[in-house]
Amino acid sequence: MIKDVVIAKLDIIDTLGGSVMHAMKASSAGYAGFGEAYFSQVDQGAIKAWKRHKKMTLNLVVPVGEIRFVLFDDREVSNTQFQEVIISKDNYCRLTVPPMVWMGFQGLSDSSAMLLNIADIEHNPDEVDRKEMSEINYNWGVS
Amino acid sequence: MIKDVVIAKLDIIDTLGGSVMHAMKASSAGYAGFGEAYFSQVDQGAIKAWKRHKKMTLNLVVPVGEIRFVLFDDREVSNTQFQEVIISKDNYCRLTVPPMVWMGFQGLSDSSAMLLNIADIEHNPDEVDRKEMSEINYNWGVS
Repeated sequence: MIKDVVIAKLDIIDTLGGSVMHAMKASSAGYAGFGEAYFSQVDQGAIKAWKRHKKMTLNLVVPVGEIRFVLFDDREVSNTQFQEVIISKDNYCRLTVPPMVWMGFQGLSDSSAMLLNIADIEHNPDEVDRKEMSEINYNWGVS
Repeated sequence: MIKDVVIAKLDIIDTLGGSVMHAMKASSAGYAGFGEAYFSQVDQGAIKAWKRHKKMTLNLVVPVGEIRFVLFDDREVSNTQFQEVIISKDNYCRLTVPPMVWMGFQGLSDSSAMLLNIADIEHNPDEVDRKEMSEINYNWGVS
């Protein structure tokens, strides 16, 4: 596991008229404060890679569809370089991504997936680094 | 408008591979602190009514599907009794519901809708009051 990454299993509670699906509590592992929550719709097959936040801790939940997350760590503190996790309602988890770890993701489901990020700071373009997909060598399984 | 209720229009930013949809910032109107975030799936036609939180402030966002919210206020501080709002991606808003206001909702879209609640305290059954649907006289448009 990449240092400071958390993958926490979340509860889904079946109730009449639709499930209740946990996302995050202030007491949860990985909670680093509240700055902003926003959704990213991820179309089928779409790949968004790579982005790194210098300050923001991401907490990612997928309530709809299926998304592959790939983390790449080039910090000296970590021994693990790549980490992959596929999250959906069938593997319903929250993924905590610490600052300074590169992240990319890919929509796997037939229809658009929905990603919630609960971030500890508000969006600020100055704290975001980007690389082209080809700059980090990872096989996304597409030609 | 019922006292302390906020309906705030939210931004949707089109990007390649899927939109980014705002939900809440710590600096947003209606933000009362972070205790817990959770999703409720709302099946087509399902009605969940009535519930009142004694302490929790709800901040409700609908990233998928369409939901009708009905608020009923029997506090003496308010002059408005009923308030209704339909929220979907076409009317993309955040609804802030203060404590002591009754709330019910209904799934309007063909497939399940998804509701995010960003609450200022963690879930606690002791601060929730419930009434049967028939105990508050509202026409949900179903027989």
